[in-house]
Amino acid sequence: MRCSDLGEDGVIELISKDENSPENIIIGIGDDAAVIHPGNDQYTLISCHMLVEDSHFIRSKTTPYQVGYKGITKSVADIEAMGGTSLYLLVGLSLPPHTELNFVDELYRGMEDANSKCSIHIIGGDMTDCRGPITISLTIMGEAAPDRIIKRFGARPGDLVLVTGPLGGAAAGLHLVLNEVSIPDRKLAESALLRQLQPEPPIGKGSALAATGAVHAMTDISDSLCRNLGKMCTFSHLGATIHMDKIPIDSIALDLARHTSLNAVDWALYGGEDFEMLACVDPRYAKDVEKALGEIGSDCYFIGEITSEPGLKINENGATRELTLNGFDHFG
Amino acid sequence: MRCSDLGEDGVIELISKDENSPENIIIGIGDDAAVIHPGNDQYTLISCHMLVEDSHFIRSKTTPYQVGYKGITKSVADIEAMGGTSLYLLVGLSLPPHTELNFVDELYRGMEDANSKCSIHIIGGDMTDCRGPITISLTIMGEAAPDRIIKRFGARPGDLVLVTGPLGGAAAGLHLVLNEVSIPDRKLAESALLRQLQPEPPIGKGSALAATGAVHAMTDISDSLCRNLGKMCTFSHLGATIHMDKIPIDSIALDLARHTSLNAVDWALYGGEDFEMLACVDPRYAKDVEKALGEIGSDCYFIGEITSEPGLKINENGATRELTLNGFDHFG
Repeated sequence: MRCSDLGEDGVIELISKDENSPENIIIGIGDDAAVIHPGNDQYTLISCHMLVEDSHFIRSKTTPYQVGYKGITKSVADIEAMGGTSLYLLVGLSLPPHTELNFVDELYRGMEDANSKCSIHIIGGDMTDCRGPITISLTIMGEAAPDRIIKRFGARPGDLVLVTGPLGGAAAGLHLVLNEVSIPDRKLAESALLRQLQPEPPIGKGSALAATGAVHAMTDISDSLCRNLGKMCTFSHLGATIHMDKIPIDSIALDLARHTSLNAVDWALYGGEDFEMLACVDPRYAKDVEKALGEIGSDCYFIGEITSEPGLKINENGATRELTLNGFDHFG
Repeated sequence: MRCSDLGEDGVIELISKDENSPENIIIGIGDDAAVIHPGNDQYTLISCHMLVEDSHFIRSKTTPYQVGYKGITKSVADIEAMGGTSLYLLVGLSLPPHTELNFVDELYRGMEDANSKCSIHIIGGDMTDCRGPITISLTIMGEAAPDRIIKRFGARPGDLVLVTGPLGGAAAGLHLVLNEVSIPDRKLAESALLRQLQPEPPIGKGSALAATGAVHAMTDISDSLCRNLGKMCTFSHLGATIHMDKIPIDSIALDLARHTSLNAVDWALYGGEDFEMLACVDPRYAKDVEKALGEIGSDCYFIGEITSEPGLKINENGATRELTLNGFDHFG
């Protein structure tokens, strides 16, 4: 069955079931706008993403379920990166009329599986036809107490640079997606692909960091460690030195690099979409921060320091060299 | 200059200037998520729309300015239809790399001109490249006091059916957009085109209606009078009778119908996108409602009544006949 067989109202009805709607959703899908009751003394956080077929996902390489799941991960990472908790989602869909209903069903199943891990509810959206690539617009809303908001730009010289998990896994998976590589170890290939196609949402990582009161600046690693750290520094007229031996490289990336004679360090430094938090932490509270992340089951890696001298540097075996700000630029 | 020349960050910088940002926008464009301070004891209203090239706008027939302006009108209509006031906007853009920067500039100029009439601020968004039609995702947020929220479905038998302005103008303009019609009266043709391509946002109309406390149900006329009224009734297991002689037909539609030998009544009944409010009003407070709309300079037309018997009927010269629920269905 195709979307054109069911019509706009039919497709919306198909996807607008939410049995466990919490009481602060006053009106969900089905009216002119959704209505929510914001938490007392909370700030509202909001972010949106466009996911476009052949730019963000390739239908022959990923499943609709994974597209939905990863969309939630990307959205949650933004809210966590501000120190907030994700709550609500609006989904805009632009679909060619011949799109199979199964695509919509699976896309929603992926979103809902990820949502249910994060207690996110879909409260609205829009659906339209198009003559182009499938385009998905995700708007996520969350909340945080006013004193828990962490900006991207607020690092101070001497801050420790922290990441909340291993890096390079998503880039390793992307290598398999984009190239015809034969990997005899099927389980390894599958794990690497999952890192790229179905990354886990960084639930609670940013909000736990914000709650310590020891974080001066935070973002999520969506572009790449170098690019995101570079941006954090440039806007604050600061720099950073990171230490090669402290960068947590995803074991999947290391294994795949061995099989392909490629460099896992490059994936960790310049690869995107690991969706871990990147934070600048007051060094006096490093132990507290480590403990707070440990309590929610998150890794905690201190990989370098913020410097008053601008520029991004990497220290390896006692020698220090400059890092370029590689990364991915749409339109670039 | 094209978007690909400037890069993603450059395009975002170009559009992220908002000099008059009010103090309840804590963080606007440029961080991982926008942060706003919701009003005390207010509910948050939120709605999103996808605007797709060749589905919602045809570049040879409309200007980027008009695409932006109309997008705001469509968004504001949703918030007003809940009884709320529009405040914030997030803009997602998916653009082919060869898109001229001028398109983005003019699109934003149109949005900002409409926004400034409504005191809406752009607080965030996303931008990506694509190989397909230009796709614009608009997420609008507003607020309303909890006792001012008006649902789409809450009409009661005996309610008066109200519309806040003349109908059929947008459909008359659509006729010119879609057909090669030669209209000797150039000013008339231009006026009709503006109705379709650059309709005015229904500022304050829904919130004024909600404030009367006399409105049981409300929506905006985006699909068509018949379709939107039909939906209001069907979901409440009710019907409505409207009176032909009370339907306010846009004078532009009447003039254009004369020139083209077409029927302006059809445009008023079955045409969409006039973005007026459609409300079901307690008949005891009809005068108060009329006064409230008059105070904000809005028209007020009572065109019929809600009936306990299901179905949509029209009364003309004493005879009553059934109306079909024509209108526009994406995928239909």
